[in-house]
Amino acid sequence: MTESLKVGVAGLGTVGASVVRIVKNKAKQLESRCGRPIEVVAVSARSRSKDRGVDLSSMEWFDDPVALAQAPGIDVFVELVGGDSGSAEDSVRAALNAGKHVVTANKALLAKHAVSLSRLAEEKGVSLNYEAAVAGGIPIVKTMRESLAGNSVSRVYGIMNGTCNYILTRMEREGLSFAECLADAQRLGYAEADPTFDIEGHDTAHKLSLLTSLAFGCEVDSDAIYVEGITSITTDDIRAADELGYRIKLLGVAQRTDTGVEQRVHPTMVPKHSAIARIDGVLNAVAVDADAVGEVVLVGPGAGGDATASSVISDIADIAREDGMPVFGQAATSLEPYTKARMRLHEGGYYIRLAVDDRPGAFATIAKHMAEKNISLQSIVQNRRDPALASDGAVDPDEPQPVILITHETTELAVREALELIAAEKVTFGAPQMLRIEKLD
Amino acid sequence: MTESLKVGVAGLGTVGASVVRIVKNKAKQLESRCGRPIEVVAVSARSRSKDRGVDLSSMEWFDDPVALAQAPGIDVFVELVGGDSGSAEDSVRAALNAGKHVVTANKALLAKHAVSLSRLAEEKGVSLNYEAAVAGGIPIVKTMRESLAGNSVSRVYGIMNGTCNYILTRMEREGLSFAECLADAQRLGYAEADPTFDIEGHDTAHKLSLLTSLAFGCEVDSDAIYVEGITSITTDDIRAADELGYRIKLLGVAQRTDTGVEQRVHPTMVPKHSAIARIDGVLNAVAVDADAVGEVVLVGPGAGGDATASSVISDIADIAREDGMPVFGQAATSLEPYTKARMRLHEGGYYIRLAVDDRPGAFATIAKHMAEKNISLQSIVQNRRDPALASDGAVDPDEPQPVILITHETTELAVREALELIAAEKVTFGAPQMLRIEKLD
Repeated sequence: MTESLKVGVAGLGTVGASVVRIVKNKAKQLESRCGRPIEVVAVSARSRSKDRGVDLSSMEWFDDPVALAQAPGIDVFVELVGGDSGSAEDSVRAALNAGKHVVTANKALLAKHAVSLSRLAEEKGVSLNYEAAVAGGIPIVKTMRESLAGNSVSRVYGIMNGTCNYILTRMEREGLSFAECLADAQRLGYAEADPTFDIEGHDTAHKLSLLTSLAFGCEVDSDAIYVEGITSITTDDIRAADELGYRIKLLGVAQRTDTGVEQRVHPTMVPKHSAIARIDGVLNAVAVDADAVGEVVLVGPGAGGDATASSVISDIADIAREDGMPVFGQAATSLEPYTKARMRLHEGGYYIRLAVDDRPGAFATIAKHMAEKNISLQSIVQNRRDPALASDGAVDPDEPQPVILITHETTELAVREALELIAAEKVTFGAPQMLRIEKLD
Repeated sequence: MTESLKVGVAGLGTVGASVVRIVKNKAKQLESRCGRPIEVVAVSARSRSKDRGVDLSSMEWFDDPVALAQAPGIDVFVELVGGDSGSAEDSVRAALNAGKHVVTANKALLAKHAVSLSRLAEEKGVSLNYEAAVAGGIPIVKTMRESLAGNSVSRVYGIMNGTCNYILTRMEREGLSFAECLADAQRLGYAEADPTFDIEGHDTAHKLSLLTSLAFGCEVDSDAIYVEGITSITTDDIRAADELGYRIKLLGVAQRTDTGVEQRVHPTMVPKHSAIARIDGVLNAVAVDADAVGEVVLVGPGAGGDATASSVISDIADIAREDGMPVFGQAATSLEPYTKARMRLHEGGYYIRLAVDDRPGAFATIAKHMAEKNISLQSIVQNRRDPALASDGAVDPDEPQPVILITHETTELAVREALELIAAEKVTFGAPQMLRIEKLD
């Protein structure tokens, strides 16, 4: 019999416990699929006594994940500790330095240290697999790293944060405010007590940074991503989007342009008929536009213990079969430095919501400044609030009414400049809302 | 430099020409992704003189694909000849016997000969890859063979024939008849001159048979598939489905049951809100329900030269990187014989359309026989035709009107027996329409 692949798992939260349980329960199946047994022989976590619903008695216990990472008895180190530094980083570096293969679900760690870690893995001739780090159970890393080998990618985009998509879906379906939906998401365990990282788009940005490298053969540079969260989205925006034939989704988008690669995370207007518009609730989806295949879209659970464990185990199985892949699909030293396409050069349509003073000439003033910046308008609509709400006293009838502008394709810079000119005219109140419209077939 | 992987391509239709062109144009990228160059060194096709838009001058020409398959200068034989026997089969067997890796897009060949071919490949220690044989550009074979290694699949289903999906989408959107849409599909090149193979469901069945083996670890048995095409679907069915919250799709479904594995291809009522209901036109989609990951859905082009070539090249790249996988994810000799779950034991909801004589008591007679067979009805609706059509003379007002029954979950056998009892009562005209409702979350 071929020798078993010996796995050490650091971090026994929901995902870690699922990995240990599934590797055990599916031992026969995994052996049959990989040609050799896989066993978890050692684990590490904070509390040794906690009941995780899995029998750890046959496994060696390490208090220190770094010690586990270097243990002579393991072939693969699975890092599920989390965090972009500290023991997650230390243990992954220790494992690679010790010539162990590494599997991780840690997007924050890779978003920050992918360049050095991928070079280290390559130097040591070991795998660094991270299917679970992007969109949980969806096999997007394998698809991009392997299935699209003959393709040139022009754009990759997706819904990669279930918390945000849950909130936006509920706002749309039930007409609730952002705050109400966030509170519900927290109550249901879909959002953290401190939800900043999710709702401000940073989690999506981490995942996007890895897809960018896979798509465009450049080094991971998550600091260069333009990031905007969903906290400014109002029910007015959701309703206007619906009326205009769009839905609002928090997308991460990486796109090749003439000046480099755009990386952006922001609430986005997507046409209702598009595949991505139809991804509801906590689901994730990633779409890839590429020259040979056209567009492929992968939909599935972006989180959850078993779903994420499914990806971790897929990564372990690849190692068991000795299917080695460079971390980002090509030699780490051959990845080009990331060339940023500046956000102000971004081209596309825009949705703009302004609170406009209802006096004569206000529309003309707005239209004039748009024209000055060569922005051609597809529509300009005074989207009067539901009078039923006004008569309920929920809306002050004297309050400025929202005016919605939809532009034809223009540049981010032109829109920003026009909005500054309009603000100086004092015909509007408060900050304008500006959402990008993604061009999708 | 590592030695190049030498590829021979038999069959230079749209897909073959795309493979040759992409391998040449993306030579540098493929080398970077696979760690060695890939080159097409030899080709075979019927006509040597035909202009295929690619330069074949540097490639050795073979009139006979079998000779190409055995040529000492090639490492990988790519079979794009087509057909379930003849030179496709002969050349694939010859290549495997000569110890060459094989890549094929030929679902008909595999549906018929997968058992012997996969054993032969295994005996010779070579790969037999077929990503392009199922759903064209969608990486479903890799996903099932590799990404779901730690999962037990309960059901796999999909829209795998663009011709049928195009016809059903047009019927729904434009209220056109099956015949009109088929004629249009033929005119646009989406359907063959003889469309039988597509519209009767056989093409879907071939693809399904391969997914069944990947999902359930059993031998391919395409003869055991229950197959029903879309030719009986009328605009009445399409309209009734819409009113009831469904869409009609030709699905291939393989599902584990208590008595074995169901394999069925038939027009299916799918809830409008489901992911699969939203796949329009010539697009394909495959969904996998599995215990760890939950559900993943892959959407993309099911046909087309470049999209299919993308999958062929992915298969070649795996071979270049020496990522060998057993043909159906585990040793061919360890696959269990297929155990058929009989169609009459199929459980689910049913849509039944009857042309009912408009006399008193007809409804009662129908309801009585349904009750006798323990079929509980969710609804029974006389779906009167549009009176505008009737007054146009397009519909005879004296013609029997369609009555639509929707059953709660029952068995195929009960429905068939009830329909026989009803037919014997002579309160209905013509053959009843019976469509299965797929249970989707």
